Amino acid sequence: MMRSFTLDTYDDLHGSATDPAVGSLSFLNEVMGRYPKAISFAPGAPHTSSYDDLDLTRYIDSCRRHLAQRQGLDQEAAQRLLFEYGPSRGIINEVVADALNRDHRLGAEPSDVVITVGCQEAMFLTLRALFRGSGDTLAVVNPSFVGILGAARLLDIDVVPVSEGTTGIDLAELQRLCEEARTDGRRIRALYVAPDFANPSGTRMELETRRGLLELAYREGVLLLEDTAYGFTAPPGDTVPTLGAMDTSGSVVTLGTFAKVCLPGARVGYAVAGQRVTDRETGDTRKLADVLAEMKTMITVNTSPIAQAVIGGLLLEHGGSMTQAGRAKAELYRSNLRLLTDALDRHVADRAPKVTWNRPDGGFFVRLRLPVAVDMALLKRSAADYGVLWTPMSTFYLDEGGDRELRLSCSYLSPTDIDEGVHRLAEFLADVAQ
Amino acid sequence: MMRSFTLDTYDDLHGSATDPAVGSLSFLNEVMGRYPKAISFAPGAPHTSSYDDLDLTRYIDSCRRHLAQRQGLDQEAAQRLLFEYGPSRGIINEVVADALNRDHRLGAEPSDVVITVGCQEAMFLTLRALFRGSGDTLAVVNPSFVGILGAARLLDIDVVPVSEGTTGIDLAELQRLCEEARTDGRRIRALYVAPDFANPSGTRMELETRRGLLELAYREGVLLLEDTAYGFTAPPGDTVPTLGAMDTSGSVVTLGTFAKVCLPGARVGYAVAGQRVTDRETGDTRKLADVLAEMKTMITVNTSPIAQAVIGGLLLEHGGSMTQAGRAKAELYRSNLRLLTDALDRHVADRAPKVTWNRPDGGFFVRLRLPVAVDMALLKRSAADYGVLWTPMSTFYLDEGGDRELRLSCSYLSPTDIDEGVHRLAEFLADVAQ
Repeated sequence: MMRSFTLDTYDDLHGSATDPAVGSLSFLNEVMGRYPKAISFAPGAPHTSSYDDLDLTRYIDSCRRHLAQRQGLDQEAAQRLLFEYGPSRGIINEVVADALNRDHRLGAEPSDVVITVGCQEAMFLTLRALFRGSGDTLAVVNPSFVGILGAARLLDIDVVPVSEGTTGIDLAELQRLCEEARTDGRRIRALYVAPDFANPSGTRMELETRRGLLELAYREGVLLLEDTAYGFTAPPGDTVPTLGAMDTSGSVVTLGTFAKVCLPGARVGYAVAGQRVTDRETGDTRKLADVLAEMKTMITVNTSPIAQAVIGGLLLEHGGSMTQAGRAKAELYRSNLRLLTDALDRHVADRAPKVTWNRPDGGFFVRLRLPVAVDMALLKRSAADYGVLWTPMSTFYLDEGGDRELRLSCSYLSPTDIDEGVHRLAEFLADVAQ
Repeated sequence: MMRSFTLDTYDDLHGSATDPAVGSLSFLNEVMGRYPKAISFAPGAPHTSSYDDLDLTRYIDSCRRHLAQRQGLDQEAAQRLLFEYGPSRGIINEVVADALNRDHRLGAEPSDVVITVGCQEAMFLTLRALFRGSGDTLAVVNPSFVGILGAARLLDIDVVPVSEGTTGIDLAELQRLCEEARTDGRRIRALYVAPDFANPSGTRMELETRRGLLELAYREGVLLLEDTAYGFTAPPGDTVPTLGAMDTSGSVVTLGTFAKVCLPGARVGYAVAGQRVTDRETGDTRKLADVLAEMKTMITVNTSPIAQAVIGGLLLEHGGSMTQAGRAKAELYRSNLRLLTDALDRHVADRAPKVTWNRPDGGFFVRLRLPVAVDMALLKRSAADYGVLWTPMSTFYLDEGGDRELRLSCSYLSPTDIDEGVHRLAEFLADVAQ
């Protein structure tokens, strides 16, 4: 039927419908879609070579056999696990807990884990559970992954930025924010932080800062929402523990995704939330994970068991280890990072000496600082006149920061494209960044 | 690490953490889990025989070949569609729009469709987009599917019940609610309704009532959120159109799931929202579906393309028709419904003459009215002493209604179990319902 009726103006919709954070990625994609021939350092997408050996059917079968054995099910009953609704907390929780314990010594029990539709749902669920109304604020390390900002916006949660600095977070600033909130009768309820090669800056949090952050969080009652998406790209022999692994006081909720370490198309992630929640009247306790699982029934019911089996099988075929499942990819990403920063050294350092960049050991991203304003107009010029795309860092800042920065992602480019892309970037920067 | 720290009391979490609607299904499942040998008329789960011929690999391949052909992609690029992130609105939108047009004459364009993680996410997203804050109320036909109540609770949306009555909705009551809201400076923003064999009552909305509802909705500016989950179970030759198919004024958002007509394990559903949203400043318009897709990036990013391919392939193998894909299942469910109501006639009518029930032509559910209070205590007695489970209807009521009603679901039982279950039910009712 014809729908001739103009329903509404944006004034009638939820405020997130016109929020820049929620719309930013669509907007960027739209702009970038206009320059299909440009070399793009924009998207943080996995490298396509990581899909070459994927075999969905084999993974699903592996996982089904594993679950059948663990649960004493016959072939048919195990098959049904994948076809039916399942528990909202997930069906591969044990596989995931094992992997987190093996790879990160997290000490997670399967009942601490909720399997989610990617890390995005893990963030969304955790925010929903933790924020009950006015007076509670979410702190985020600034600049920040837009997914957490958008989720907070959809839930009308107040957000306050904390500077990332060079150590991963400015602890004095966070302390001050906690005190200011207290003075105002509010509180910093939680902090979103990605300590390992954060998107967008590539920054890694120092060990000493991790210790200080955990102490501060415990002292101030701030829950740390630790996003572990890029941790697997750390160099071999890396020994910096995650906040979750260092946590002895239940201050950390671990949030993760299998999008990068396995594949995005399964849309599987997790939250690890073993904290106890107490019923004040009865004294009964449940895990925060139980609360998250219950709330999940009202958002997505459960994560597709078929998709869970893809990830479960892939992990099992790699010794139940995310690190092992992601090893070849991590090498590729580190190699791409080196190619990128080496090419910047060779081509950009001389021609645009006022431009600087960081040199992360892992992750997908490098941050460039320019002596001029970096905005959408500059991006369009870079795309149209120089054939090279990137992301303005201001997209990821909650405040006015990042207005002279851009983000380069090298995760899905070939060595040839990286080199040619940096050539074009050098031309561009030589012209605009003197 | 040990998590010895007791984080919080429920007072510190969002109110939905202790909301009966959100917790109701977990609670019921917990009670029912204690009686594994009882015959259960409780869960509205699909029949296991509907899984017999499923072939995930074949469906995925079918859908991939179809998408490759439509989009002019080679084998490798088409494969990547399933492995990578994809557009948040989905990759099988055209297949789904075609099916809705073929089966329901909905007149949907692919760009009206957002593919979601089941109908639950479609409801959640639609509520988020439509409700911007205080003053807007969601009306729901009472009794109601708990999924919509839970979603509204998670989003702090006010909900008001409208009686279902025998015609599917009490239009005079809805009209009165709209007027009362207006008087109070509020409005009824939307109505959730499942016109075809609603869960939990099995009621079907009459054609005349559908016409009246559409008129009222247009006149009062109430958006109708039409849940179509059980429509495919209508008898052959059925000609009652959906609200969406009758809609000429953009008053209907169609919400659906492939859980029942295909399989639950894919977790794929959809929203159809072709309504126009206008930017007051620029005059530009977008579809409501575009807004939903953008918001989805902040909840689940996108629906697993692998899961979408399972559903897309299954539909394509059935002539691109949900009706055809669900035909054998629909016959089974109607047969089970007849077996159930016939058995109630034979075994219960004489022994508990004060008990009455409805006789739906489709859906999964029959409603029994008892002359006594139906509560958890009665359910426990039924389970422990008579070996038969069901769901108290009060679970699905927003007000005090349904306290003498119970719901029977027959979707996943065998003929033998239905007969034996009704025998046990007759024993139980003969004892308690005189």
